[in-house]
Amino acid sequence: MNFASDNTVGASAPVLQAIVEANAGAMAAYGNDEITRRVRARFAEIFERDVDVFFATTGTAANALALSSAVPPYGLCICHREAHVIDDECGAPEFFMHGAKLTGLPGVGAKLKADDVAAYVKSLPRAVKQMPPKALSISQVSEGGLVYDLDELAALGAVCREHGLAFHMDGARFANALVALGCTPAEMTWKRGVDILSFGATKNGGLMAEAIVVFRTDLAEALDYRSKRAGQIISKARLIAAQFEGYFADDHWLANARHANRMAKALSEGLARLPGVRLAWPTQANEVFPIIPHALDRALKAAGILYNPWTELSLPEGEHVGEGEVLVRLVASWATREEDVHRLLEIASSGVSRHAAE
Amino acid sequence: MNFASDNTVGASAPVLQAIVEANAGAMAAYGNDEITRRVRARFAEIFERDVDVFFATTGTAANALALSSAVPPYGLCICHREAHVIDDECGAPEFFMHGAKLTGLPGVGAKLKADDVAAYVKSLPRAVKQMPPKALSISQVSEGGLVYDLDELAALGAVCREHGLAFHMDGARFANALVALGCTPAEMTWKRGVDILSFGATKNGGLMAEAIVVFRTDLAEALDYRSKRAGQIISKARLIAAQFEGYFADDHWLANARHANRMAKALSEGLARLPGVRLAWPTQANEVFPIIPHALDRALKAAGILYNPWTELSLPEGEHVGEGEVLVRLVASWATREEDVHRLLEIASSGVSRHAAE
Amino acid sequence: MNFASDNTVGASAPVLQAIVEANAGAMAAYGNDEITRRVRARFAEIFERDVDVFFATTGTAANALALSSAVPPYGLCICHREAHVIDDECGAPEFFMHGAKLTGLPGVGAKLKADDVAAYVKSLPRAVKQMPPKALSISQVSEGGLVYDLDELAALGAVCREHGLAFHMDGARFANALVALGCTPAEMTWKRGVDILSFGATKNGGLMAEAIVVFRTDLAEALDYRSKRAGQIISKARLIAAQFEGYFADDHWLANARHANRMAKALSEGLARLPGVRLAWPTQANEVFPIIPHALDRALKAAGILYNPWTELSLPEGEHVGEGEVLVRLVASWATREEDVHRLLEIASSGVSRHAAE
Amino acid sequence: MNFASDNTVGASAPVLQAIVEANAGAMAAYGNDEITRRVRARFAEIFERDVDVFFATTGTAANALALSSAVPPYGLCICHREAHVIDDECGAPEFFMHGAKLTGLPGVGAKLKADDVAAYVKSLPRAVKQMPPKALSISQVSEGGLVYDLDELAALGAVCREHGLAFHMDGARFANALVALGCTPAEMTWKRGVDILSFGATKNGGLMAEAIVVFRTDLAEALDYRSKRAGQIISKARLIAAQFEGYFADDHWLANARHANRMAKALSEGLARLPGVRLAWPTQANEVFPIIPHALDRALKAAGILYNPWTELSLPEGEHVGEGEVLVRLVASWATREEDVHRLLEIASSGVSRHAAE
Repeated sequence: MNFASDNTVGASAPVLQAIVEANAGAMAAYGNDEITRRVRARFAEIFERDVDVFFATTGTAANALALSSAVPPYGLCICHREAHVIDDECGAPEFFMHGAKLTGLPGVGAKLKADDVAAYVKSLPRAVKQMPPKALSISQVSEGGLVYDLDELAALGAVCREHGLAFHMDGARFANALVALGCTPAEMTWKRGVDILSFGATKNGGLMAEAIVVFRTDLAEALDYRSKRAGQIISKARLIAAQFEGYFADDHWLANARHANRMAKALSEGLARLPGVRLAWPTQANEVFPIIPHALDRALKAAGILYNPWTELSLPEGEHVGEGEVLVRLVASWATREEDVHRLLEIASSGVSRHAAE
Repeated sequence: MNFASDNTVGASAPVLQAIVEANAGAMAAYGNDEITRRVRARFAEIFERDVDVFFATTGTAANALALSSAVPPYGLCICHREAHVIDDECGAPEFFMHGAKLTGLPGVGAKLKADDVAAYVKSLPRAVKQMPPKALSISQVSEGGLVYDLDELAALGAVCREHGLAFHMDGARFANALVALGCTPAEMTWKRGVDILSFGATKNGGLMAEAIVVFRTDLAEALDYRSKRAGQIISKARLIAAQFEGYFADDHWLANARHANRMAKALSEGLARLPGVRLAWPTQANEVFPIIPHALDRALKAAGILYNPWTELSLPEGEHVGEGEVLVRLVASWATREEDVHRLLEIASSGVSRHAAE
Repeated sequence: MNFASDNTVGASAPVLQAIVEANAGAMAAYGNDEITRRVRARFAEIFERDVDVFFATTGTAANALALSSAVPPYGLCICHREAHVIDDECGAPEFFMHGAKLTGLPGVGAKLKADDVAAYVKSLPRAVKQMPPKALSISQVSEGGLVYDLDELAALGAVCREHGLAFHMDGARFANALVALGCTPAEMTWKRGVDILSFGATKNGGLMAEAIVVFRTDLAEALDYRSKRAGQIISKARLIAAQFEGYFADDHWLANARHANRMAKALSEGLARLPGVRLAWPTQANEVFPIIPHALDRALKAAGILYNPWTELSLPEGEHVGEGEVLVRLVASWATREEDVHRLLEIASSGVSRHAAE
Repeated sequence: MNFASDNTVGASAPVLQAIVEANAGAMAAYGNDEITRRVRARFAEIFERDVDVFFATTGTAANALALSSAVPPYGLCICHREAHVIDDECGAPEFFMHGAKLTGLPGVGAKLKADDVAAYVKSLPRAVKQMPPKALSISQVSEGGLVYDLDELAALGAVCREHGLAFHMDGARFANALVALGCTPAEMTWKRGVDILSFGATKNGGLMAEAIVVFRTDLAEALDYRSKRAGQIISKARLIAAQFEGYFADDHWLANARHANRMAKALSEGLARLPGVRLAWPTQANEVFPIIPHALDRALKAAGILYNPWTELSLPEGEHVGEGEVLVRLVASWATREEDVHRLLEIASSGVSRHAAE
């Protein structure tokens, strides 16, 4: 039972099928093909407006490329201090942005508050020694599994507009956030001020399918050159596009995300009911962050269940992980089976009981 | 009939099958899986020694990463002036090498001569204003479709050793060169002084499967960080490795390359027999570079045959493309059908006849 | 009365005289001159061993070049979170290091503790997503005006050795620290494990005279290329070297530093005696960081005395700046006149009295 | 007798005097001082319009900064293939431009022709693999000592406008070109389409005084950040500005340049009169490029006269350097004494005679 991440399984059946079908025959290379054109049009439909779309094979590349179009080499990009871009990409954004700086702000559950961002920008010295702030990057779903609601997004968008920041959304779990909010892609992005989006499909059914969706034409201008130069334009590009075709067909992507979120909810509710277990913060998408007793941790691991410990850095004020406890992350995905959730909860339940009996 | 490039078709059947099979189930992400381990071991077998292997989704990324491990930001990398790395990658090597410089030397059919490389290195001022030469990058097969023989490779290797250059081979068409020479991978690489290799599979049956094979441990040290940082470590990494498993199984890769070379040979011999047609230089792998009359060019295009014009930059001394002629490139691949070659030659033959009759 | 910084005055008389003398006649450009050679030898004497010396016109360039030789583009450099390199150089280190990352740790008075550095390094995940730590950079004198003693330096040096970090010292106020400790340059650097030093003279009498002194040969290898490439090798290089000749002659540099420290001590003691004034931390070199009442702040400003407010970020635990207070920095230099210090203290004294009377 | 370069002497008397005067007293650091303000205004007067001015300590830094503001990391900068920026700066432009590429075109005496630039731009493939051309950089005076006349500049300016290239002028010998043409600074720059200028004073009397003069506001936007980040904003900035004050006062700079050009003319005419000596191309500013017999070369060297051999790369078609000849460069400066020119010509004359007698 693998709750370690949502990238341990392969592609979902419709996505794999789309690859197999697109593989046949000869087509123009480097994205000048029919499938890529169709998928670009599909993105425009989904976002209810003209968009520029660029493809990438990893979320890291998508994020780094997106940021490189928004932040000059001497600029500053604000993000949460646990953001994937600052913590998990071996400095890819700094590389692609040519030495621009990421600066991380605090916030519960890895979410930023608009007021904190505004206050930070205002606190910066207006001097040449200070790299000027040029972009804000948030993760929707956040690294802590939380979802910015539409008002929060609007507030962040307003801060960006006021201070001349490009607004980037790392949507590695875009679909999970979307179905959690029950809104449209447009409502969750450009209608709230988002300028450029890393649209991830890999974690939700894709094989290696990431897209950069650009809502501000000037940010799209050089992205084809930047992508090529980053080795991200694959020759048989239709095979990336095809994955999106399979992903979008029949709302497959939304169904996948709904399933993942539902599994996480079940997991979350089941765990929270156990004595000695509490949630670090609410479960809003497909990730659960419980604080559990060591005994439960041992019981789960003994049962071969895979998941990871998590940092306490973004706990709410006043909350902390006690001596005999650990904060962990459990991730559900489109491929998580209901029976595995039940199994895990049973094991957890008996683990806790055993502990109480000891 | 598509003779424009060897990247217009998808993956060959065994490679696609390997992807489909590897897709099932959950595995550790980011290359910590069983398939990746197996493929790494397979590379060691193929090259008859320990090697470090890193995967990439494009040849551009593989080349740029390889060069970035060999050339510091203040260094110079020597290549042919028509090399893919200098001409076709939108500056990816300069990006990955952080502003190091590529310098292009001339040579017939886009091949470098060891003496020219040595003379160039010796001609450089020994002064701080001069970026110091740190690497040599050759393409095997060359951009002009020529194959360096084992002695030529050894001579280049010796120049590299003498002058402290890392020796990089861009093997986008590695298999085509290998079967052309009839030697082993070891003989064509590290036994001749090659330090680091871009091993391409995409053009010869892969979907998006490139590997960097490193024969000098020091060059491998940081490549995992560099790859991550370049967004080249895909989460579902086993799907890249799986392609190589399908590629290597039952010598599928060699069979594919032999077929492509045979098709190119047939094409080359057929065209060379036509009046008014001559080869710019010999056909040694899977690409043919004939100089053809405009009439023939028109006839082929009228028949819907796809191929590209080529630069005259690397013609042998004394040779030139006349007024009514054009130098073109025709590429055969593992997927080229014998009947298409025959068809093309028939069309060509009647095109030339018609022209003579006019 | 300017206590804002130690870079508001020009060069001291001996340094200026050395420039004027070196200006006459023709000499080889770009550092191939006699004066540069002499000064290099002088550095070796001063540090009691062979050293490699490179010149720069700004401390920012010296720091950034030094770090670029120690940290690869994918590496991490640890420093205090208020360090000049992370806070005051508009990302110069990130630019010169090609996107490597600076990470700032806390510490009272902008000093790092060896244990904190060791704990931080150990806390980093051993994973490819994590940029590997490659260097430690400290400022001696620290940004808070504190001086690392020899044991503290040795402890930091030991941490660097244990974890494979290059040890960089930003010595913008090297002389001030040296006379504060009363030790030799060797004792304060390589004998405590320092690998590379930004040796600043500009703040202590130079016009624009900074040197990078390298104690580890491998770090010096490419610094001439890196300097040239950064536009730091000036053509009339002897004019930089000449400044150091004037600076070192007759221990002028040590006399300057002693004077500056003495002035700061007088200022510090005088201020600390005033009611309502306390030092944020001790005065150890040429900078004073008092917490003063607003009334005093107003009185000093009204008298035209220049100085700057300072961040509270590095106050000792438990200490804080109250409602009616402000933390400020006053800097003394070689050019600070004793009478100005007395004047300032008089103004301060009557400012405080007036305030009490109100 | 040093004819090796115009950077072997120190500063001229008025420039040195200005430094000494500006050195006294305290002023705001980092360019926020009165002298810097005055000099900025002076530049505006000299160029008869508003300009943005940034200072640098080397021509390499000035060029690299200027280009970095005009060329994005994925762009191409066109220059002559012997240009200082491509050949003599250890890749500084590539470093500051973050891996953008310089491409060198041929041309007699290191001058570019507008038609050649236009033809080159048109020849580039319109494809993502091709870095898009973003700037043209010329040297006025050229690396071969030639001066672009106003029509040639206008023609280059027109090509830049047509193709969207920023037009950069490397004016390391700006004054020498100016007095050679007898025009105004405005006529030689922005009135002919120049967008950004490296204005060198170091070779013509300065100590280390270079300025970037920007005629297009958008190119100036980030140059202060870029300068800081490159370590080019010196703390005691008024000492750079002061040099320009001395340089411009009483048209000192023009007098210096006129003297240098006159010395070069005398040298050139004297040498050209000698049997067996011819000029590679005309002498138009302060540099002479004669092709001389080996015997003369030996005689000059035996007399201790310093100068450098030169590349034959930019000889006019048909011209070449014979077996017993060598192409050399002799540089005159503001400090060249008439008697040294006469002395050199005497030595040359007798050297040639002796040779004839042998």
